Formats: sequence, structure tokens, C-alpha cells
Amino acid sequence: MENERTFDETFDEVLSALLALIQQKKYKEARDLLLTGHNGADVAELMESIVDEEGIERAIILFRMLPKDLSVEVFAYMPIDDQVNIINGITDKEVRFIMDEMDFDDMIDVMEELPANLVDKILEKTPKEERKLINTFLNYPDDCAGSIMTPDYISLRRDMTVAEALSYIKKVGMDSETVYTCYVKDTGRKLIGIISLRTLVVSENDLLVGDLMHDDYIFVNVYDDQEEVSEVFKKYDFLAIPVVDKEQRLVGIITVDDILDVIEEEATEDFERMAGILDDSDRKYLDMSVFHHAKSRLPWLIFLMISSMITGVIITQFEAVLSKVIVLVSYLPMLMGTGGNTGSQAATLIIRGMTVGDLEPSDAAKVLWKEFRISMLIGVVLGSINFAKIVLIDGERVLIALTVCLSMLLIVAFAKMIGGLVPMVAKRIGIDPALMANPMISSVTDMISVLTYFLLATMLLGL
Amino acid sequence: MENERTFDETFDEVLSALLALIQQKKYKEARDLLLTGHNGADVAELMESIVDEEGIERAIILFRMLPKDLSVEVFAYMPIDDQVNIINGITDKEVRFIMDEMDFDDMIDVMEELPANLVDKILEKTPKEERKLINTFLNYPDDCAGSIMTPDYISLRRDMTVAEALSYIKKVGMDSETVYTCYVKDTGRKLIGIISLRTLVVSENDLLVGDLMHDDYIFVNVYDDQEEVSEVFKKYDFLAIPVVDKEQRLVGIITVDDILDVIEEEATEDFERMAGILDDSDRKYLDMSVFHHAKSRLPWLIFLMISSMITGVIITQFEAVLSKVIVLVSYLPMLMGTGGNTGSQAATLIIRGMTVGDLEPSDAAKVLWKEFRISMLIGVVLGSINFAKIVLIDGERVLIALTVCLSMLLIVAFAKMIGGLVPMVAKRIGIDPALMANPMISSVTDMISVLTYFLLATMLLGL
Repeated sequence: MENERTFDETFDEVLSALLALIQQKKYKEARDLLLTGHNGADVAELMESIVDEEGIERAIILFRMLPKDLSVEVFAYMPIDDQVNIINGITDKEVRFIMDEMDFDDMIDVMEELPANLVDKILEKTPKEERKLINTFLNYPDDCAGSIMTPDYISLRRDMTVAEALSYIKKVGMDSETVYTCYVKDTGRKLIGIISLRTLVVSENDLLVGDLMHDDYIFVNVYDDQEEVSEVFKKYDFLAIPVVDKEQRLVGIITVDDILDVIEEEATEDFERMAGILDDSDRKYLDMSVFHHAKSRLPWLIFLMISSMITGVIITQFEAVLSKVIVLVSYLPMLMGTGGNTGSQAATLIIRGMTVGDLEPSDAAKVLWKEFRISMLIGVVLGSINFAKIVLIDGERVLIALTVCLSMLLIVAFAKMIGGLVPMVAKRIGIDPALMANPMISSVTDMISVLTYFLLATMLLGL
Repeated sequence: MENERTFDETFDEVLSALLALIQQKKYKEARDLLLTGHNGADVAELMESIVDEEGIERAIILFRMLPKDLSVEVFAYMPIDDQVNIINGITDKEVRFIMDEMDFDDMIDVMEELPANLVDKILEKTPKEERKLINTFLNYPDDCAGSIMTPDYISLRRDMTVAEALSYIKKVGMDSETVYTCYVKDTGRKLIGIISLRTLVVSENDLLVGDLMHDDYIFVNVYDDQEEVSEVFKKYDFLAIPVVDKEQRLVGIITVDDILDVIEEEATEDFERMAGILDDSDRKYLDMSVFHHAKSRLPWLIFLMISSMITGVIITQFEAVLSKVIVLVSYLPMLMGTGGNTGSQAATLIIRGMTVGDLEPSDAAKVLWKEFRISMLIGVVLGSINFAKIVLIDGERVLIALTVCLSMLLIVAFAKMIGGLVPMVAKRIGIDPALMANPMISSVTDMISVLTYFLLATMLLGL
């Protein structure tokens, strides 16, 4: 069998051969190499590397030499920045061909990133009806169901027989995003039922679509958030879901392949927010400018810096204590660090639990009680290690060890409970819990750690 | 239309009515309420809440009153802990019915969680061939392709016509996990091609499967990691992918609905690892014991505590400096905090970039150069804010402000570059980069922050 090595294993070899050919300007040979047994996704991956290594101009030369149909497929799989660059480097006729042949939802994604004058130019020769449809789709807000749906679905009528439905699908099936779920509408474009191709294929030919369809179908609204849509997919294991407007009219469908991207995008957003990064673009790390990177990282850094200045002020209040027992300072990073880490652990679990639907803000009491018990267990373990280390290794007084050990217990308890509670409160009052994660929790626990530690020291050491 | 309110909106109403009926032991009425217009996923969600609120015994009474077919579907959608409890609370006959009727891959998932003696009991009356198959599936390691695949796919022969293939699918289609991708095998069970139901439906009846099928199909190996499998789905927008063994024999298929779960699971694992939580279970937050929670959080806390003790030791070395200018301590939390936060930002972006495939360890030089420039920009902004604040608000000496300001610049630069580099090095040497995230980076930057700050202070302030 030829397939015993997968594409991933041969990727690097093929790529370096390709790059060599391009450097020698042997584009025809390069194209032929691209075409040997690969599909659109693979060619797109190679083209992407060619853009990175050899520049967009050379990539465009090669791109224009691809067979027309493949070029559309390759284009659809490329990252958005490359797509925009390619559009700018090919003829208007080529642009229009690609736009016509692409899946409707992919085409809209590209259009959204193009400057308005270019969109107008592309739409100039588009028939009026389609232009109207494209404009409607372009106007749906980012991140809502409307922005990821496609109008290319199969519509059936309830009075069709199975045989009629199948022969209709045979006729139009190639232009539809999916044929595996079909939609039954009444004359007013209202969705009245859905039927799977599986049902059609396994049913007798003379049965009626209206009798076989599901009329208690699940749907989403065109302005629903894409994250909610992905929850529906995860819950019901769908391949596609209908999108309706306020009048329950079917305006499009969303297919599961687009949901995979949504889930990844939403997870990336959460990862970034939890690290205090505010990024509104879907662009790749290396494609973003230094200035853009700095801009998305600075707001939280400044906010957190200011809140840690407060921690500094608290320390200043205890300068007198500190100057008497300067060794206390050396345990401060450990206490603050542990407070931050342990609080972040709780916050991460709670935020993630709410994202995947395991936890609700109404579980707050259960979470607090659980975190309290966990923190006692952890606090005792960490406190004991410290007590032993301070007395036996550092050779400090028992009272200092006791101060650190007790501080540890209290700090872990505070940190765990704050880490557990804050994200739930955030969700309840409508703030994204992901914003309440590690950096935010650390800066709160820092203050509490310092305060707890120095207050205990003042009391226990009689300072 | 009746569907104008979605299930989610009526969930709480239905649930409280249900709980009231169950408390009054009106199980028949409760069952009838459960059956009004809901599907398996919705009933499962209600049952899950009933388990939480009213206990497993009452939930089981209700579960046993469901129509047989629905009960199988509901069971399949329930969380694993509830599934095990239900198995323990129903008769052997009922268990066997559920196991027989469930999708093969879901059934395997349940079996994996059951104690061995219970599995043996269930398998007792299973035909020998199927028992062998189940045992093979049970033995695939967790997290590999084999553990999420199903053997219920449609096999066609290359010499079938389209009409023959469709009539074969009509016969067996209801028992297969998916009918939308069909698999063509030779007599030795080797996979020789795949064909979509769409192709079959749109093609002429007398064409041959062998002429229409794709023979350069993409496949995965049975021991491939499930994360790699999900990458393949994301790249190619598949609905299903064939799984082959070393001899290229088709052993099962993986469908996209299971991949949604894999992506979510893998993201959760990354979130947890990045927060220093080592959890090997897929169980929900509230279902895990306090002891289990503590056990999964303690290892990293202890490791990080020990490394922050090193930071403490560094501070001790500078006690003499500190005792002369005690105000220096008050800026320490801010410098350490900013170092940690800014390093975590870089680490998070790099880790995520590698997870979604935008970055490779070979991009290290580009990343370092980018992070260096970003850190200069950020360092200058944060340093200037601090300089102004220390001189104007705190009223400290310019030299102290300069010490803090320069330390900030250096710390941000170190932190960003370490945050960018460490995850890439980890990946290169085969450690999960997610383990190198926030807590790990913070503890490294803590040491560097303290060292930089005190060294600069010693030099600039002439201490």
C-alpha cells in the first residue's frame, strides 16, 4: 500500500524539495510536486509554509498555476492573512471565480476581512439577489450564530416522497454544505421539521417526508453567541443545526466542522484572558506586530502593577516589624507564591467547570465548603513542611516557624476560597469568569498573604 | 409554533416540577412529564439533576420506568459516575439490554469504568466473538485512537454498484455509528478506499463503488494519541476517520461527535496543567473527593514552594542591603508580580500557539526576537510609570526610582524571553509544554526578579 507513510511524515521532505524548486524558479516542477496525491488541506499547508519562507509573491505565482478547482479548495484552507494577500495579488476575474466557487460561509469569512472597496468591487458583477444575501451575512455581528452559518442547505417539502426527496438531493447535493441533514419548510419559509439522509436512505421509497421528519427539532437563533451554539453541538452530538430568525424562519445552518474551529477559538480566548491578555484578533502569534502584542498585554499588567503597589504599601506599614526581624522577609516570596498558586488552582478548576457546564454560580456554597476542606488538608501539609524546615534547617526560633506555618494555613484557606468564589460571582454579575483567573487572583492573594503574615508576626513575636 | 421557547429556557421549570413530583413519590406523573416532547440528551440532563438533588435511589426508580429504547439513549448521555451507579442499581437483565443496545464505543466507555467482576458478569452471556472484540477494545490504552473508535461502520465492496451499495446501506444503516462515510475493504480486511454517502446519492445507479471511492484517504493508527486524531479532524473537516492497525487493516472508525469531547477534554487537561493541577480523572469538580483534589494539587505546590524557598535564600544573602534601605522591600511584590504575570503571558501564548499548530519549536529564534522587542516596549512603559510614581508620590530618592525602573525593564525582558523559550524547549525534549506554564514560569522569574533587583540596588545605591 502506498499509504503506509502519512502526509505528516513526508511533509518536511516535500516542503524542502518544493522550496528548492521555487528558489530555482522551477515553478512548473513545483506545481507538479504539489499535485502528487495531495488534497486541498495538504496543499494549503504547504502553500502556507511557502508564503512564510519564500514570500507572498512567489507563493502567488505558484497558486495561480494550480488547477482551478483545486485552487479554490486550497484558498479555503489558508489562513486569513494569506487569503487577503492572495486576493490582492491575483486578477479580478480570478478573485470572482474563487468567491463563486467557495462554500458560502467560507466566502463570507474572507469578505469580512477585506477592505470595503474591494468587497464592493467583488460584488459589482454579482446578481442582485445574491448580493443582498451576502450583505445580510456580512452584517451579522462577529461571534454570533449568523456569522458562522451557511445558506447552502437542502430544503425539502413535507409532501415529497422519500424517492422524490432522494432524486432531488441527487440533483442539488453537490452544491450544498451538507446533504446529511435536510430541512423541511412551509410555504412561508418557516422551518417545520428536519430529516436526516440516513432516515431517507433506510426508509421505504413511497413514505412521505412529512411523516418521517422530526418536528421537535433543536434550533438556535441567528443572534445566539457561537459559544452557546457549540454547547448545543456538544450536548446533542449533531452534524448540523438549523439557524432561525425571530419569526422562526430558516435563515441558514451551521455544520460541525465550523464548530470545531469555534471550540478552539473560544478555548484560546479563555487561555489568553486567564493569562491577562486582551486580544481581539484571531491572528497567529507570529503574524501579530510587536506593537499589537504589547497593546494586548499592557492593560492587565498595569492594572496588576497598581494593585501590587497596594501590597507594597501594606509592607511599608510593617517596616518597623520587618527591621526588627529581617529574616521574616525571606519567607515572604514563598508565602505569596503559594497563595497565588493555590488560589489559581481553585480559580482554574471553577472557571473551566463553568465553561464545560459542570458548575453553576448556584453551586457556590458547595464549592466554598469543598475548597475550605481541601485548603485545610493542603495547608497542614505545606505548613508542616515549612515548620520542620525552618526549625531544623534554617535553625530559627520555634515562634518564627509557627508564624510562617500558621500564616501558610490561613493564606491557603483564603486563597482557595477567593479563587473558588470570585469566578462564580463574576459569572453571576455578567463578567467573563476567565478574566478573574490567575493574575487577578494572585494580586488579591498577595495583599492577603502580606497582611496575614505580618499581623500574625506582630502578635506571635510580640513586635 | 410550539418551539418558540427552547428547552434551556424551560429547563428550570420542568426540573422543579419533577423534583416536587418525586418528593411526593408520584413517579408515574414524573415519568410522564419527562416524556413530554424531550429527547435523550434533555432527559439525561434532567436525570442528572435528579441524582444530585434527590439521590441515586430515586433517580433509578424513575429511570427503570422509562420506555426501554429511551432509557438506553438517556443512559448513554449521562455522566460516567451516574452510569456506574445506575448499573449497580438495576437488574442484570436490564444491564444487558442497555449494553446490547448502546453504541459500541459508548458501551466500551462504560465498561472501562466498571469493576472487573461486573464486566465479567455482563460478558458472561455475550456471544464469544463479540466478547473477544469487547476485550480487545477494553485493552486499548486510554487516550489513544483505539479507545474512542467504534467497530460499527458500513463496509462496502469495490465491485458493488451504487444501487447495490445503497440497498445494502438501507438494510444495515440503522445499526451503524454513521452511514455518511462508508469503507471499502479487500478480502483481507485491508482498507482500500472510502466513499461518502453524498457521493453514492448523487451518482448514477450503475457506477461501481471501486471507481467512485477515494483511495488516497487519510487514516490514523490505532495507537495514535487522541489529540493527534483531533488535529486531523480540524485540518480536514472530516465527519469520520478510519482507524487501521499496523497491517493497514481497518479496525474501526472515529466520528466527529467523539472528537468534540476529545477537544474539550484536552483543553481541560491543558488548563489544569497550566495551573499546576495534576488530575488523571475525567470526573467533575463536585464529584471528586476532597482528598483527591488535594492530591492532584499538592505535588506542584510543594515543588513551587521549595523553589520559592530558593528565592528566600537569595533574599537572605541581601539582608545587609535590605536592612539599610528597608523601603526596597515594599517594591518587591510589584516587581515579582509583574515578572510572573508578564512571563505567564508569553508562556500562555506560546503554549497555545503550539497546541493549535501555529508555532513549532523551530520558531524559537523568531519568538525570542519578538518577545525581546515586546518586552522593551512594555518595560519602558511600566518602568516610566514606576519612576514617576516613586519620585512624585512616594517622594523617594531618584536613585531608588532608577533602581526600580531599571529592574522593571530587565525583569520584563528576562520574564518574556524565559516565558517564550521554556515551553518550546519543553516540547523539543518531549515534555508537555502546558506543564511549563504560569506557576513554573512565575517561580523562575521570582528568583530572577529578586536577584536583578538587589544586584542593581547594591550597585546603584552603593550599598
